[in-house]
Amino acid sequence: MYKLYYSPGTAALAVHWMLIEMNAPFELVLIDIEKGAQKSADYLKLNPDGRVPTLVVDGAPHFECPALLMLLAERHSEAGFAPAIGAPERADYLQWMFYCANTLQPAFRNWFYPDEAAGAENATATKARARAILEDGFARLDARFGGGRQFMLGSQLTVLDFLVTMLTRWSRNMPKPATAWPHLGAYIDRMRAMPSLREVHKREGLTDWIGG
Amino acid sequence: MYKLYYSPGTAALAVHWMLIEMNAPFELVLIDIEKGAQKSADYLKLNPDGRVPTLVVDGAPHFECPALLMLLAERHSEAGFAPAIGAPERADYLQWMFYCANTLQPAFRNWFYPDEAAGAENATATKARARAILEDGFARLDARFGGGRQFMLGSQLTVLDFLVTMLTRWSRNMPKPATAWPHLGAYIDRMRAMPSLREVHKREGLTDWIGG
Repeated sequence: MYKLYYSPGTAALAVHWMLIEMNAPFELVLIDIEKGAQKSADYLKLNPDGRVPTLVVDGAPHFECPALLMLLAERHSEAGFAPAIGAPERADYLQWMFYCANTLQPAFRNWFYPDEAAGAENATATKARARAILEDGFARLDARFGGGRQFMLGSQLTVLDFLVTMLTRWSRNMPKPATAWPHLGAYIDRMRAMPSLREVHKREGLTDWIGG
Repeated sequence: MYKLYYSPGTAALAVHWMLIEMNAPFELVLIDIEKGAQKSADYLKLNPDGRVPTLVVDGAPHFECPALLMLLAERHSEAGFAPAIGAPERADYLQWMFYCANTLQPAFRNWFYPDEAAGAENATATKARARAILEDGFARLDARFGGGRQFMLGSQLTVLDFLVTMLTRWSRNMPKPATAWPHLGAYIDRMRAMPSLREVHKREGLTDWIGG
């Protein structure tokens, strides 16, 4: 039994989605970031970063969304959500997981919390730069799907697709959302057709982006 | 045979160090970032980010230092540089690799390239914020070593230690370098005693930080 601390629409969504897709047993605990619950003394004891998600695995709390996705794929290897060690796709898998983690995720953080990188008085400049990095990233992803590729690693659906979909979802209210790139948009539409993605939106009370 | 594109003292150092430590055969190609060689048309064909390292594995170029470290640990599993899938340390391993990648690494980027996050006119504010994030990170790492822990994951030396050591090395000219924290400093001294770390400094022409 896993325990997932989440707030709707955050980086916890990919983990929540994955747990539903794998049909793994879990308990859900709401940490309402709109109310600052992630900075409560109790939660900080669990997660010193004061962020979501936290996933309790075998009684111990763990963090970092991409790490949790990889861990779940490894613990439920029968679901086939990661290339096996030694498989030819392994290098691409690791590379793109870290690309998402150290390029796209920090740029989104700067987009949504533009006071953090260089202070409130420079928020406009921070957002402009974050937008440029993200649009460059979406163009890169678009190019990857240009040759008829089905998922990030080819024909195998992996946790990398859960991560990329969650991240591109965050662009939905940006001036040029990820769905505006044709190949990337078509990929996102394929991902949005997954019943488990619709289900996690429903369970987190999210109504936009998932489509009609 | 691997081929590593590097520039001295960059994120390529951890990969270079690992290749030496594992005694793996590799060819080294200098991409001098002081001269902007990472933005040459030829190199961008190989690595569209225009960054180092690039590691050519089985004829294909791959990027992202933490991903390359994990990949090398998997391809040379006999060296024991990563907890096996299913091992109890696996969750911590993944979590800290991504913590380094999406918290420490972007903060160092803002420290060293402070014009990027919010423009040249806000470089001072960007650096101040990056410093605060890094010092918080060093305090976190220091706490991890407070209980007599030998390496990041306990008694097993893993690629996570190569990554943490490389990152803490980057702080050497900061107002409060990582070595100023007592437990973290003692750990760094243990790592600096490794002959392969001295060797990679020598091969990259680096003389500071490694100690006498």
